[in-house]
Parts: sequence; C-alpha cells; structure tokens
Amino acid sequence: MTQTVLVFLDPAHPDGRIEDAGKPTLYATDQGVNRGDGVFETLLVLDGHVRKLPAHLARLASSARMMHLDVPGHEEWERAIVTALAEYQETVGVLDEVVVRLVATRGVEGTHVPTCWVAAFPPAPSAKRQREHGIDVLLLDRGYDSDLAERAPWLLLGAKTLSYAVNMAALRYAHDRAADDVIFTSRDGKVLEGPTSTVLVAHAETDDDGRVTFKRLVTPQLDSGILPGTSQGALFAAAKEAGWELGYGPLEPDDLFDADAVWLISSVRLLTPVNHIDGKPIGANPSLVKALTEELASLFDRIA
Amino acid sequence: MTQTVLVFLDPAHPDGRIEDAGKPTLYATDQGVNRGDGVFETLLVLDGHVRKLPAHLARLASSARMMHLDVPGHEEWERAIVTALAEYQETVGVLDEVVVRLVATRGVEGTHVPTCWVAAFPPAPSAKRQREHGIDVLLLDRGYDSDLAERAPWLLLGAKTLSYAVNMAALRYAHDRAADDVIFTSRDGKVLEGPTSTVLVAHAETDDDGRVTFKRLVTPQLDSGILPGTSQGALFAAAKEAGWELGYGPLEPDDLFDADAVWLISSVRLLTPVNHIDGKPIGANPSLVKALTEELASLFDRIA
Repeated sequence: MTQTVLVFLDPAHPDGRIEDAGKPTLYATDQGVNRGDGVFETLLVLDGHVRKLPAHLARLASSARMMHLDVPGHEEWERAIVTALAEYQETVGVLDEVVVRLVATRGVEGTHVPTCWVAAFPPAPSAKRQREHGIDVLLLDRGYDSDLAERAPWLLLGAKTLSYAVNMAALRYAHDRAADDVIFTSRDGKVLEGPTSTVLVAHAETDDDGRVTFKRLVTPQLDSGILPGTSQGALFAAAKEAGWELGYGPLEPDDLFDADAVWLISSVRLLTPVNHIDGKPIGANPSLVKALTEELASLFDRIA
Repeated sequence: MTQTVLVFLDPAHPDGRIEDAGKPTLYATDQGVNRGDGVFETLLVLDGHVRKLPAHLARLASSARMMHLDVPGHEEWERAIVTALAEYQETVGVLDEVVVRLVATRGVEGTHVPTCWVAAFPPAPSAKRQREHGIDVLLLDRGYDSDLAERAPWLLLGAKTLSYAVNMAALRYAHDRAADDVIFTSRDGKVLEGPTSTVLVAHAETDDDGRVTFKRLVTPQLDSGILPGTSQGALFAAAKEAGWELGYGPLEPDDLFDADAVWLISSVRLLTPVNHIDGKPIGANPSLVKALTEELASLFDRIA
C-alpha cells in the first residue's frame, strides 16, 4: 500500500492536496463507504501518458449525472492527476505502467460536499499474465432484462458507481470454480458485459492461404444497460480505420461459442483473449485467434 | 457530525478503540469505499437498551457469509457497542434514542483484514415525523424476478451490503416526485421491500360496533430475494401472541391497494403507515388504520 500515491481534490489546493496513503484520510461518516454512494474511473498510464483521459472524464461526469452527484470539472481532475503522477515518479518509480483511479463520493452525510481523490498505483501482476495467456470465463445471469435501463433510471444501469459488491461477488464465484472472469447475461438471454470489462467478438473469413479477407468486430449494444466501454469505443474507432466491419449486438451466448475470437477489454488489463466459456473452447482456429488478437492489441496499443 | 461516536473493532483493544469521528479514520485504499464491498446493520437504542441485538448480529453474520467475508464474532461487536454507548452518554447526551450502525468492510486491498466499526449518532428528525404522519410511496421496479435469489447467489440478494447506491437512487427518484419512500416490485409483479424497510400489510374484519373481530398481518415471502427484516420478525412474533393471523406473500400491488392498512417497518423509523401508493389512498377506513397502527406500534414498542 505504500506504493499508492493519493491526491485529494480540494478547493484550497488548486493542484490537489497530496496525502499519505498509509494514513487514514477518509471519514467513517462518508456516504461513499456507508452506502457505496459515489462514482469512479480506472485509467492506465503508459510511458507517462494517461490513456483515454477525455473519455474517462466524460464517463465519470455521466455516471455522476445519473446519480445527481455534483463532481468537479475536467480541469480539476486533470490537475490532480498531474500532481499524482509527479509524486508517483518521485516516490514510487517510473511511469511505464501506472493505474490511476478517480473516485468521487457523495461525501460526509449532511455536508453536501463530495469527497474526491486520485490514487496512482502499480497494476496487479495478474493483468499482464491474463492478457498474454488468455482467460477462462463463466456466463452468469445478471438478473435484469436487456431493455430495463431506460425505463428504470433508479437502477443506475450504465453508471459506474462505487456499489460494486455484486461485481466482486461474481468474480469470487468464478474464481471458486477455477475460472478467471465472468460474462454477465441478461434475464432475456443477451450477452451484457464483464464485471470490470467489455465483451468483444470477432468473425473473420480467410482465403485458401489463411489470409484474412473479412473481419468483423461486434460488442453488445449500449442500450442493454451496460457500461459504455472507453476501451471498446477507442478500439472500435481504430479498427474501423484498419478495415474492420463494426457491429453492435444483440449478442447471445451462441454468438460467443460460434465466434472466431472473444475478448474482454478494459483500460488496465487491455485486450484479453477468452480461451474457454463455461468450459467450452472459444475460437476453432488458434492461429486465427492469435493473428486477430495481435492485430487488435497493436491497434489498441497505439490509441491515445 | 460531532454528534457521532466511533469505536473501531481492534484486536489490540478488546473493548474497541474509540476514535474522533471529526477526524479521518479510514484508508482511501479500503475496499469498502472503492467497491461498496462490505456489510452493515443499523440498530436502535431506546432508553439505554439496544433493540433486537441478537437478530441484527445474526443478520450481519449471514450477510458476511454470503459475501465470503470474515467478520468478528458477536462478543466483539457487543463490547464495541457498549463502549460506544458509554462514550455517547458521556460526550453527546442521554441514551433515550440513539442509532447504532455496525459496518464491516473487506478492508484495505491486499491485507485480508476487514475494517470494522460501530458508529452511534442521533436519529434523523424525519423518522419521528414520518412515523406520526405517515408517508407517500411510489412502486418502482427492482428489475429482478422474485425467484432469482436462490439460483444466482452472486447477486447477493438478501445480503445487507454497503452497495446501496440503487437504494439511495430510488429514494431520490421518489423525493423528486414529492413522495417519501419506495416499495420495490419484482419483474414478475410481486411486492418486494422498501430500499431501507420491510413491507407489512393488514386485513381486518369488524363487527357492527366497529370492533375488530379478525386481523391478519402479511409480509412478502422471504425467498423473493428481499432482506429478512429483523423488525418484521420481531413484530410477527409479538402479533401472533396478540391474536393476529400471520401470512407470507406472494403479494402483488393490488394486495396493497385492497389492504386495510400498509406499513413500512424498520429498526430506526419503526412502524410507519403508508398513506398513498402511486397517489392512491391506502386503507378505506382511517379510524381502522389508526387503531391497527396503534396496536402494532404498541406491540413493537415492547419488543426487546
């Protein structure tokens, strides 16, 4: 934990207030901890560059709006991030690969002032391992219909809130069954998202020499109550440039089993191939999976 | 916030470690705040007596089990509560009416040590007002089928977790529409629970002189994925002794509209009559509502 750098957003400190992560900094009366009442984002810094910063800040603002939570503007977050990375470089190490987490809670009960901070810390070693070797995934029912989000705004579907207990429980459920991760499905049988990632599916055609002549990248439709993936959005833009056809669901589990490749993508773990779903192997042609993964990973590496 | 007394459970302090609630006491790396990953209970102390303590401690342990979270045993919580109440009496005021909150988070990432504390503070003034004047309620879709809990344990239905963002959002949604509270319904049209309370429904028959000759108290069935209400459980036991028939759902919205009285019951707000649901008045006979409310409130006052 000493490898975590903390910077609080504070009107009295325009560049943010550095705090020691090894000391208590939050009040026990904060609604963030008592009610999971707040929003967050997790970003990746690669070689000193904060990836997809505008997309993350836009999603943080959107999540906060869905919760009627007033959070600081983009500039205040950016200044705190700059401070956090400078402090990280000075006290922890080089900025080759750093996770940055932005958190905004509803604050201490009765104060109506959100508690906002930036934490910078090294990524878990499992991220790289999973990216390189692929993961095994279970399909788990999320319980909601895929058309629920719009007619039930109080369910906060599509907001990235601090209330992640179900996401964590689903991951524990998978780990207890020797799987690495989860893909949630809706009550009406649609593919939704991972607890901390977006689902991507590829279909490709090859000629007699094994050269890819057609490639299509599909993700579940956004209006199914899932989180809009900043990584999915960025990769889709890059893939389109590179000649991929793009598609948005609805996807059903059979679309995963029939796909040429399936990935979970997220800001920190990046593009991670799915080897098995519910024990069944994904992608009939391993060398095609490898080629598609390498192409998309390379496209994703280059995004800003 | 200076009216809050804080006592942390701490192996080095068998009676708990008193902390100043006006100072930071939690780490920003705690999974309680970053993931809403933890459990809680809210208890009421009346005239120095902690009501329903065994039921609350049993439910805390049950919630923790559902989350694979190791929490301290009953005795450690009890000692910390005693310390908190002594400190409250000394520094805040008499123990005529005090709220006690027990919180256990999964702790700081990587430590595998839960963060546990007891907070004691005065109840919100709105609780008494709502209890005396009744409340207006909206029915809101919780999105889940009523038979989902058992087949999807990863959804943590029936666990009282810190991930309460949806419960808070539902209450905000109601407040924005001039209602006081919410009753969740399931996707398949069953009555579930309030965001912070249990639903109770009464049917009564009276003779020509208006005397109650039959009275029945019904609550939604526990296996519909709702929280087992400690107040409902205690009141049911007392009502049975007093000659009430008892019933467990399934209940549908029409059962609320046709009822002789509807209440939301919780440990702190106690028995609160529902005046309107979705704008429609509840209970055709106001004097019967009043008589039933008085009888049940008096039974509930006397429980331990």
